Amino acid sequence: MTFSTRPQAEPRSAYKVFRDISTRWADNDVYGHVNNVVYYSWFDTAVNGLLIERGALDIHAAGEGHVIGLVVETQCNYFAPLSFPDAVVAGVRVAHIGSSSVRYEIALFPSDQEQLCAAKGHFVHVYVDRVTRRPALLPPRLISVLETFR
Amino acid sequence: MTFSTRPQAEPRSAYKVFRDISTRWADNDVYGHVNNVVYYSWFDTAVNGLLIERGALDIHAAGEGHVIGLVVETQCNYFAPLSFPDAVVAGVRVAHIGSSSVRYEIALFPSDQEQLCAAKGHFVHVYVDRVTRRPALLPPRLISVLETFR
Amino acid sequence: MTFSTRPQAEPRSAYKVFRDISTRWADNDVYGHVNNVVYYSWFDTAVNGLLIERGALDIHAAGEGHVIGLVVETQCNYFAPLSFPDAVVAGVRVAHIGSSSVRYEIALFPSDQEQLCAAKGHFVHVYVDRVTRRPALLPPRLISVLETFR
Amino acid sequence: MTFSTRPQAEPRSAYKVFRDISTRWADNDVYGHVNNVVYYSWFDTAVNGLLIERGALDIHAAGEGHVIGLVVETQCNYFAPLSFPDAVVAGVRVAHIGSSSVRYEIALFPSDQEQLCAAKGHFVHVYVDRVTRRPALLPPRLISVLETFR
Repeated sequence: MTFSTRPQAEPRSAYKVFRDISTRWADNDVYGHVNNVVYYSWFDTAVNGLLIERGALDIHAAGEGHVIGLVVETQCNYFAPLSFPDAVVAGVRVAHIGSSSVRYEIALFPSDQEQLCAAKGHFVHVYVDRVTRRPALLPPRLISVLETFR
Repeated sequence: MTFSTRPQAEPRSAYKVFRDISTRWADNDVYGHVNNVVYYSWFDTAVNGLLIERGALDIHAAGEGHVIGLVVETQCNYFAPLSFPDAVVAGVRVAHIGSSSVRYEIALFPSDQEQLCAAKGHFVHVYVDRVTRRPALLPPRLISVLETFR
Repeated sequence: MTFSTRPQAEPRSAYKVFRDISTRWADNDVYGHVNNVVYYSWFDTAVNGLLIERGALDIHAAGEGHVIGLVVETQCNYFAPLSFPDAVVAGVRVAHIGSSSVRYEIALFPSDQEQLCAAKGHFVHVYVDRVTRRPALLPPRLISVLETFR
Repeated sequence: MTFSTRPQAEPRSAYKVFRDISTRWADNDVYGHVNNVVYYSWFDTAVNGLLIERGALDIHAAGEGHVIGLVVETQCNYFAPLSFPDAVVAGVRVAHIGSSSVRYEIALFPSDQEQLCAAKGHFVHVYVDRVTRRPALLPPRLISVLETFR
């Protein structure tokens, strides 16, 4: 951990779209704060929820499409604790759209009012052909939605 | 499972207080619907959230109070599937307040509009002395809040 | 909660098949013991693990079979706390095999040596036609495995 | 994602201590494989389990010590899918011991036989004074255990 280059909390203005997350009793661990693992379930929830709402992901056809998105990397930095029963707001932006991959960056804000995030991270989806498992092009409909998250 | 006596879905009017629950990507299991286990995390979340909001439970003093509530029984009946990313509303009522125990009954509604619950269940808290683990009286502040959930 | 009829902890001899469960850090809640919700994830894990091992459930064909098992009821009684990092042993028995339903009863033992369970409960699966959602007969292969759990 | 520098799967020989992880039904998501979030709960479980076993972490005093370890960063790369009901083995090594921080690196192997990991990642703990929240020295007992994980 080199302090000179360590990640910094970002403001809400650094993110493009937002989604409310409600915390749960089980999110808190023995220390009384949301466990570090739970943040990743919020990343999935924020991004997939946004994609579903905008018609870029059909969850009920999840097992049927020709291409599927595989998570190849996830990462998170934690700046301040979050706790149930507080509400959380997830901010999302798309940092990179490749031919067969997309990088989502997500920040978690303690409330609607708070300007600095309590944590931020990213995950990378690589799209592959369901059968051959070789890299596949991002679906056009997905790309058009992703462009609005840049 | 005797069909003549099997539990029936209840309407919203059978519950006293309500709390919004937002579903998560990880709630859905391999069948594409919220896994049966997750419903119980919503029971905890709805009841404890209501108690905290009303000053009847101090989560940060969770390890410090003289008496603690132990869950001794939980139960749930499932009538219809729920799925991420749909919103859920939890209805709560208190069915029994004993000298050292309380029975919460919870129903989960698929949305604000839906009148019949998709699932309902209960859990029983028994309060005990933290040290001796013998049954203890419900705290007066808790009782006064519970009375409003009847 | 009528104390005269309240459920009692049962010995290992009351169960037919066993499966080791390893606890996880996140199983413990703010009180330092396994949260009541987690027990149900162990019920699913023990029963489905046994069914898969014995060829009665094909998880990769989960979305493809003609009939599917829906959970219609779950229940659990808690007698003593369990905590990470302790190992747990799940005991399973089949209490009822109907034409289209099966009732699993599960107990959780704190270790290989402990004779009395820390919790016990049940869940009921009803099998339905995937398309029509009307009750369907239990698959013959499943029945033959279930008979060995009685 | 620059392919020339992308992370590579490592062999078991690159890790120092190992711990068995049993998968759970709920670990699989709608795609039939263990969800990316679950891997982090295994990281916590493997490291904290090892620390508890060796006397370097007292979970029941978790709320009482003068210093506490805060997770400030987590990261994971995924190379191949894992699925319930398969067993998993976690390999752990300590990559850095600072005055107030420690970096754990963890890999997940699909079985006792498999030499290449299915995923690998890390998390960084920073120790702080419970009250002032300023960085604190690692406890000597912890350091002596960590040295054996290098």
